Amino acid sequence: MLAPAGAIRPTGTWSLAARAGDFVYVAGMRGIEPVSGALADGEEARIRLAFRNMAQIAASEGAALADAVRIVCYVTDMARLRPLVNKVQEELWAGAPFPPRTIVEVAALNQDDIFEVEGTFYAPRR
Amino acid sequence: MLAPAGAIRPTGTWSLAARAGDFVYVAGMRGIEPVSGALADGEEARIRLAFRNMAQIAASEGAALADAVRIVCYVTDMARLRPLVNKVQEELWAGAPFPPRTIVEVAALNQDDIFEVEGTFYAPRR
Amino acid sequence: MLAPAGAIRPTGTWSLAARAGDFVYVAGMRGIEPVSGALADGEEARIRLAFRNMAQIAASEGAALADAVRIVCYVTDMARLRPLVNKVQEELWAGAPFPPRTIVEVAALNQDDIFEVEGTFYAPRR
Repeated sequence: MLAPAGAIRPTGTWSLAARAGDFVYVAGMRGIEPVSGALADGEEARIRLAFRNMAQIAASEGAALADAVRIVCYVTDMARLRPLVNKVQEELWAGAPFPPRTIVEVAALNQDDIFEVEGTFYAPRR
Repeated sequence: MLAPAGAIRPTGTWSLAARAGDFVYVAGMRGIEPVSGALADGEEARIRLAFRNMAQIAASEGAALADAVRIVCYVTDMARLRPLVNKVQEELWAGAPFPPRTIVEVAALNQDDIFEVEGTFYAPRR
Repeated sequence: MLAPAGAIRPTGTWSLAARAGDFVYVAGMRGIEPVSGALADGEEARIRLAFRNMAQIAASEGAALADAVRIVCYVTDMARLRPLVNKVQEELWAGAPFPPRTIVEVAALNQDDIFEVEGTFYAPRR
C-alpha cells in the first residue's frame, strides 16, 4: 500500500492507494487539506483539491492525470456540481486526453461532503 | 483514449474508453442514440441502448460482452428497473457467461436519466 | 467466470467473480448466507458476512483480503453503518494493510439491503 510523503493521511480502515502490476488504484479522494485535515472552503475549491489529492498520490508512482484510465465521480447534487467538476477537469488536465468517467449523484458522502473521486491509473513499471 | 467510428460522442470532459495493457475501461454509458444524441424512448429501450453503446466501444478493441470482467449498474429505481436490466442482459449476453455485477440505486444521473452502466473488459493484445 | 464450491449462488444475470490476467474481480457482495440464501440478521453480522462472502470467493483464486487493491463500499446510512464497516474491517484484516476504499451512501440496494461491497484483487498467476 502506498503512503507518499505530503499526502493526506487515512484516518480509518483504508489506504491511500495500491500498486498492482502496471496499475495504481487510488482510494476515493475528497477535498481534504493534507496538513490540517480540514475540508477546503467552497465547492469549486473542494472539488479541485480532491482531484489534486488524487493526482499527488498517483504521481508518487509515476502516473500523471493523463494516465488515468477510469475515474468515478460521486456528487451530492448533479445539477450544481457537475459543471464545477467539468471546469476543474478542464483546468487540471490542461489539454491532455480526459479519462473515461462515470458520474453519479449519491445520497451522501462521509462528513456530509459534496464530492469524491476514485481513480485508476496505468503506470507500467519501467 | 478510444473514439471508435459510429459511437456516441462525449460532450464533456471525458473519453469513451481507454485501453491499458490487456484491459479496456469503458466510461459510464447511457441510452443515448449515437447519431442524434437523444435519449432512447422507453425504459427498456434506454437500458438496451446503454448496454449496446458499451458493447460497441468494447468491440472496437476486440472485446465482446462475454469479455466483461466487471460491470457496475446504476439505476434510479431498483424495484422497477432491475428486472429490465436482467431481461436486457439475458437477451444481449445470449447464453454467454454473465460478468460480475454490482447494481445500486443512486439519487440521480446526468440528464435525469434512469440507467448507467460502466464496464471493464479483458482483451489481451494479440 | 468463477463459481467456487460453498459460495453463494447468483440468482440473476451475473457471476460471482472473474479472473482476468493477474486480477480477480468479485461482484458486489451482500450479507447472504451461502446455504439458505437468507440475509444475515443484524447490521454488523450482515456487513461481516458480505466481506466474508467476498473473501471466500477471492480465496478460491489464491487471493487474501490483504491482496485487495480496491474496495467500494455502498451503505444506505453513512452515519450509522460506516462505523460498523470500520469495525468489521479491523477484525477481518487483522493487522494486514487495508485496501484503498471508496464508501458512499446510496439511495437503495437490492432487497432493501443495507450494505454491499465490491472488491478487486491482485493475485498473480504462479
